[in-house]
Amino acid sequence: MKAYALLGGPTDLWPKDIKKQLLTAKQNDELIFGVDRGALFLKELGITPDVAIGDFDSLQAKDLALIEKSVKDIRYSNPVKDWTDSELMLQTVFKDYQADRLTILGATGGRIDHFLINLLMLLNPSINQFAQKVELLDQQNSIEFFNPGMYVIKKKEEYSYIGFALLSATKDFNITGARYDLKHYSSKYPRVFSSNEFLPNSDHFKISFKQGMIAALYSKDVDRFHNL
Amino acid sequence: MKAYALLGGPTDLWPKDIKKQLLTAKQNDELIFGVDRGALFLKELGITPDVAIGDFDSLQAKDLALIEKSVKDIRYSNPVKDWTDSELMLQTVFKDYQADRLTILGATGGRIDHFLINLLMLLNPSINQFAQKVELLDQQNSIEFFNPGMYVIKKKEEYSYIGFALLSATKDFNITGARYDLKHYSSKYPRVFSSNEFLPNSDHFKISFKQGMIAALYSKDVDRFHNL
Repeated sequence: MKAYALLGGPTDLWPKDIKKQLLTAKQNDELIFGVDRGALFLKELGITPDVAIGDFDSLQAKDLALIEKSVKDIRYSNPVKDWTDSELMLQTVFKDYQADRLTILGATGGRIDHFLINLLMLLNPSINQFAQKVELLDQQNSIEFFNPGMYVIKKKEEYSYIGFALLSATKDFNITGARYDLKHYSSKYPRVFSSNEFLPNSDHFKISFKQGMIAALYSKDVDRFHNL
Repeated sequence: MKAYALLGGPTDLWPKDIKKQLLTAKQNDELIFGVDRGALFLKELGITPDVAIGDFDSLQAKDLALIEKSVKDIRYSNPVKDWTDSELMLQTVFKDYQADRLTILGATGGRIDHFLINLLMLLNPSINQFAQKVELLDQQNSIEFFNPGMYVIKKKEEYSYIGFALLSATKDFNITGARYDLKHYSSKYPRVFSSNEFLPNSDHFKISFKQGMIAALYSKDVDRFHNL
């Protein structure tokens, strides 16, 4: 079953059609998770999450009461903890609810420590097994995660650019059949290869690597507020 | 000498007082670098950069002409290249212009591949020596970089939170004298420790580590556009 999780990141970076996406998911009985302030955002969108997760310490009492009154499964996390709320959410989505795909919204922008936790959490060995089921999605980026192996990277029409972030030490990374191919690249530290492209008349290319974790970064330009 | 570099990231994430900061810098004869679209943004702010760097391929001809007519030192980069524009900028700032501090603006938000290049570029061994002279600054985050050693982390009044991102494999990371101390932490992959605090009546604590690169993440909450 497909699942969605809304985190507490800035709402102005949400995909434009987030409400429609989530309402459609709800109608299809897909799972919806709210993490911390994300649970409140869901209520404000008119959607009661199936599960709310967090310490909720940034919420006002009346807002927390609204969540506690309507959400059937609430997981309270400890503010001083080994697991971040995002990691606890992944455990719940995949271990308890057995979802087979997860789209995470509200995970980017704002405080950089929060974003980096969301970007890097799948390196944690205890949840690393779920990496390839997870997508981070915002207004102009879609991020997918890969453990070592060989993969076909497919074009997504709405995104103009494709890059790769080597999130940890990497062995023997290869890109084959793209605009810029790469052969047997290894690195002891993280590195980003940005602005690759699909070949004309091709909707895919291949990547492979033997050690590490790699994020595929699909992105597009958007018209943003520009006021100097 | 102090230097500033403005990159092409979203303008709505700039520090609120960016124009004042840069005009003051200009008056004090500090160095100002514009990277790609950032060079045009500077012109739009009424500031002619000392140096413009980039392939400028996203600029219209008239905008590039404006830059070429007024900027004395222009470094054209090759779109297909080993060095990103940001890396080329660091080389120019520290090797050619011998700056002793650099604040990078316009480096966050927007395309995540662009942000990650800016966050991770100092891991590159050929520019790693400059890490401790660099700050990334936006509306709600200040990021500083550390190579192995022992450091005093000082409170910055405007930021409520302090976290640390271990950007690569790390050996023997210690936090001493903070709200949440840490002893002899090692990791083979990147990891984030967020939401630490300074002790009451203390404006500093210590960190040390023996291998890796660590970013100090100062952050604060801001009122953002919120329209559901």
